Amino acid sequence: MLAEIIAVGSEMLTPHRQDTNSLYLTAGLNDLGVSVAFKTIVGDNRKHLVSAIRIALSRADIVLLSGGLGPTEDDLTRECLAEVLHLKLHRSDAILESLRQRFSARNIAMSPNNAKQADVLDGATILPNAAGSAPGQWLDIHYEGNRKLVALLPGPPKELKPLFDAECKPRLAAALPGNHLARRILRMALIPESQVDERTAPIYQQFPDVETTILAGHAEIQLHFVCVKPTLAEAEARVDDVLDLVAREMGDAIFSFNGESLEEIVLLMLGVRGHTLSIAESCTGGWLGERLTAIPNSSRVFLGGAIAYSDRSKTALADVPSYLLTEHGAVSDQVARALAEGIRRRIGSTLALGITGIAGPAITTGPDATKPVGLVYIALTNGEDTQVKQFRITGDRDRVRLWATQYALEILRHYLQ
Amino acid sequence: MLAEIIAVGSEMLTPHRQDTNSLYLTAGLNDLGVSVAFKTIVGDNRKHLVSAIRIALSRADIVLLSGGLGPTEDDLTRECLAEVLHLKLHRSDAILESLRQRFSARNIAMSPNNAKQADVLDGATILPNAAGSAPGQWLDIHYEGNRKLVALLPGPPKELKPLFDAECKPRLAAALPGNHLARRILRMALIPESQVDERTAPIYQQFPDVETTILAGHAEIQLHFVCVKPTLAEAEARVDDVLDLVAREMGDAIFSFNGESLEEIVLLMLGVRGHTLSIAESCTGGWLGERLTAIPNSSRVFLGGAIAYSDRSKTALADVPSYLLTEHGAVSDQVARALAEGIRRRIGSTLALGITGIAGPAITTGPDATKPVGLVYIALTNGEDTQVKQFRITGDRDRVRLWATQYALEILRHYLQ
Repeated sequence: MLAEIIAVGSEMLTPHRQDTNSLYLTAGLNDLGVSVAFKTIVGDNRKHLVSAIRIALSRADIVLLSGGLGPTEDDLTRECLAEVLHLKLHRSDAILESLRQRFSARNIAMSPNNAKQADVLDGATILPNAAGSAPGQWLDIHYEGNRKLVALLPGPPKELKPLFDAECKPRLAAALPGNHLARRILRMALIPESQVDERTAPIYQQFPDVETTILAGHAEIQLHFVCVKPTLAEAEARVDDVLDLVAREMGDAIFSFNGESLEEIVLLMLGVRGHTLSIAESCTGGWLGERLTAIPNSSRVFLGGAIAYSDRSKTALADVPSYLLTEHGAVSDQVARALAEGIRRRIGSTLALGITGIAGPAITTGPDATKPVGLVYIALTNGEDTQVKQFRITGDRDRVRLWATQYALEILRHYLQ
Repeated sequence: MLAEIIAVGSEMLTPHRQDTNSLYLTAGLNDLGVSVAFKTIVGDNRKHLVSAIRIALSRADIVLLSGGLGPTEDDLTRECLAEVLHLKLHRSDAILESLRQRFSARNIAMSPNNAKQADVLDGATILPNAAGSAPGQWLDIHYEGNRKLVALLPGPPKELKPLFDAECKPRLAAALPGNHLARRILRMALIPESQVDERTAPIYQQFPDVETTILAGHAEIQLHFVCVKPTLAEAEARVDDVLDLVAREMGDAIFSFNGESLEEIVLLMLGVRGHTLSIAESCTGGWLGERLTAIPNSSRVFLGGAIAYSDRSKTALADVPSYLLTEHGAVSDQVARALAEGIRRRIGSTLALGITGIAGPAITTGPDATKPVGLVYIALTNGEDTQVKQFRITGDRDRVRLWATQYALEILRHYLQ
């Protein structure tokens, strides 16, 4: 079974907006053992949309359309699908009534063009939209002699996602032959993709029925294993088999077996080990703090820290002695150590990290003037021992900063293991 | 002139990866007065790719293909385009030689399948790729009686972008009738989209030859004005006319007239006014620091701050008196004020911001237990006066945190104006 996803909306043909619904829909289709063969993005243009729908119906078994269900003249998805399928639209009294209630609950007069949202293709099932005014529609039809499953879904992700899960996915599952999909995700940081592939390919290639994908980016490598079988137990067993062998090969380079992020794992381990953490960040400027505090309940183990961006703030917030800054420069083994030790004493956490480096542009005066962009020192202290590591990170300012936060989290994870 | 962009690669049909090249290519095409009518994403599948290319050539004047130019069996773009156009491929000695040099410079043996990257469609112009091994190709041909401009571009963005700018865009410009495009972007924060539309629509609707787009998201509203005319001067004059009128209407809700981000503008204004800044962030956990320090040379005016995530760190880093925390709770007018005043004294900046709030989940014990998720206090002090504002931000944890950083920057911008 092949699927095509059509995202409708002229804004997605500008340099500023992108379709993201298709990622969510793809995950849902994959869960049912269905692959996506094509994605098409088309504007609010009758001729173009009719042509895109016609092509999709001729090459895919399942066609999901998102967007173009609103009340304006630009919203053409219903009309265009009706044209291609030679179906008529009828105005649904039930939808009209719920639209009226929606508007009166908000004390707004319903403008006449809103009634358009009550237009339903003959033979379509209405899919209620709990989060918005435009309902979805579902068609199980024949087109050029073949069975096609077609869904019209609203464009806003907050409406599309719950509607797809509640109304569309169960109908797809009921219409499809018994396919069950198991998926596992391994995540690794700070290891080259080529090395991961070299070491794991001989393993995963022995599992031709498991689809293995290596994704690299954002300072980590992900290995995705997906298997489709007639029963869930069979699919899970195969995925677990390859996962066990790969895990044995890659050892503790793997930080997560179920898709959790590195910061989630580190926070979890801090809690399990009864530790608390504080940080002092120079070149990363708060990014490590932001990553940790993006996780709900991080306050149980993360106590806070210093954005020690200037010499003055290093001294004032983390008690870095000024002579270290003058003698060794802010970007030095000694200052990384002093940042970690100073912030730990100040905040009273059991562990602390200190990060200092040159994200770029190069520093042109003082003791750091000779040091290269990308030089980063990271210190971890438990109050008794402090370890400092030096890194040379390549790439632009953003990459140096991201990788510095990633190295800091990895140092902490290895310490906690 | 209509364009279609085809992104080739099975990874972009998974839930994990998305085509982003098309945004860059769209901006480049728009600069030349060309609109994108369709985007297609297709996997590394010969039949599907041939069909996608055939459809694109039948409905668009310009077809840009990205990806599928690598050395593996999965890389099929060259072969598929040759099939559709009934053209032969020939192996280019010049490309072969440059591939060999590339490999020997890296001390790697060139594997035989790499030679495939030297295959060129008969009649195509080779577009040198300075950043990678696969060169692009350019065809100016007739297909079904109509002229078509076709470019094959490498998939990795770091290769595609410079190659498109240096080799492809000038060829497109030379082949197209004289179109010149002017674009201006207005950015506003913390104002509802409906209000922006209500106030500006009567203005921009008087300029039917200027394409106006309102984009909302990430706690800001952008207004894009684009105009295409036979000369650049004409296009710029029209865009400037509508911009002036809209700017008069929206006044200082506008923070940027040339696309700069809010943090860039605030850093610029701090410098111009001779100010320095420190911050103490509780619920935003370092995000404001991250945003400020993401901008190169922010260290000229941003001195640093505290991630005052726990009570202990509020006291230890920003000298918040403990009795304030006990009496009023960490999420209070008083603590926001104390955070700003405390960090300013500590760091010695001229200005300071303090942020405290509940990003979620709700706090269940202590003096903040009765306060709602989304409650945020932001204080700005200059050492003499301190203003504190209370906000109720709706949405999830991420949204509350993002909007809190945005409000803080807006408070600072209005103070500096």
